[in-house]
Amino acid sequence: MKLYDGGRAPNPRRVRIFLVEKGITVPTEQVDLGALQQRSEAFTAINPMQRVPVLVLDDGTVIAESVAICRYFEALHPDPPLFGRGALESALVEMWNRRAELHLLFPVAAVFQHLHPAMKQMVQPQVPDWGEANKPRVTAFLQFLDRELKDRPFVAGTSYTIADITALVAVDFMRVSRLVVPEELGNVRRWHQAVSARPSAAA
Amino acid sequence: MKLYDGGRAPNPRRVRIFLVEKGITVPTEQVDLGALQQRSEAFTAINPMQRVPVLVLDDGTVIAESVAICRYFEALHPDPPLFGRGALESALVEMWNRRAELHLLFPVAAVFQHLHPAMKQMVQPQVPDWGEANKPRVTAFLQFLDRELKDRPFVAGTSYTIADITALVAVDFMRVSRLVVPEELGNVRRWHQAVSARPSAAA
Repeated sequence: MKLYDGGRAPNPRRVRIFLVEKGITVPTEQVDLGALQQRSEAFTAINPMQRVPVLVLDDGTVIAESVAICRYFEALHPDPPLFGRGALESALVEMWNRRAELHLLFPVAAVFQHLHPAMKQMVQPQVPDWGEANKPRVTAFLQFLDRELKDRPFVAGTSYTIADITALVAVDFMRVSRLVVPEELGNVRRWHQAVSARPSAAA
Repeated sequence: MKLYDGGRAPNPRRVRIFLVEKGITVPTEQVDLGALQQRSEAFTAINPMQRVPVLVLDDGTVIAESVAICRYFEALHPDPPLFGRGALESALVEMWNRRAELHLLFPVAAVFQHLHPAMKQMVQPQVPDWGEANKPRVTAFLQFLDRELKDRPFVAGTSYTIADITALVAVDFMRVSRLVVPEELGNVRRWHQAVSARPSAAA
């Protein structure tokens, strides 16, 4: 198999962190997003959505979408469980991973894509008002998350899961989007320190 | 348990269709989105994200997010499988469900939320340019899906899955968003007729 990776972009990093947490090594090829290599004819044939990461299996089967790739590895290597175990725990991990995506990662990405000058060529049309509209959504979710993290160590409960990976990648990407975690959100800061101290965070 | 439902909105309908396909009946309470009941103090205490659907278990545990609710029922009632079976099939269903969300349902919803006059009060700020920017994304994805559906009956493969539910709900919501499926996309139209003919589509 081969993983098409994409450097510092948030979604490829989600999969890399996941693989380190699982202790899995996968042959990897870098796709140069700065050079728009993901829009080349060769890569478009692999993923018509022109996005990374993508996992290509030995028989040529293509698995796109970060969370789909992670689920594939979760099924092959169930330990440690990063999607929860059992009906309820799995549902709560799904809920928190989606909340972290919809209300944190996607808004942080929208701020970057629609306001950063470096994205002018990549994102057409850039809609600066949409970028601005997403800034307060990021803060609002972090405030909510801070209240939740008062009583538990990780985003979805007592164990580290894919929801922590999504939230970590989102918070780290805030710097690129020129956003900051408000000083007073002590629980988010404590959680961020803890998940950043894991070896996987270097991925 | 109790399902907080939300009338004609797309996400609550995803869960209702899922439940009919599974043959599961759940006690339901309607949340009046038109009256902004999802922003009431009582409902915000249940889901601080102020969104439906939400499933509340008998012990008070809250499962929000449509797909998290569906996964919970999938684990309790595995037949018929609507999230795929085995590592590869499950990954491909996840991939297609996410593609149907990210590139179809969310763009269709963005067109509605940011361009429809009825959404002025609900969506603040409305960003009409963002609504417009999403229109071509809808068409582009439907063209891609049409090529894919040339060789298979359902969005994620040979079986009906949650990816079909997401895509059906999105396509049906296009009417509300004042969008149309291009006449020439015969495979999408054939698929849409087939999934609309299932009893679950009435949900």
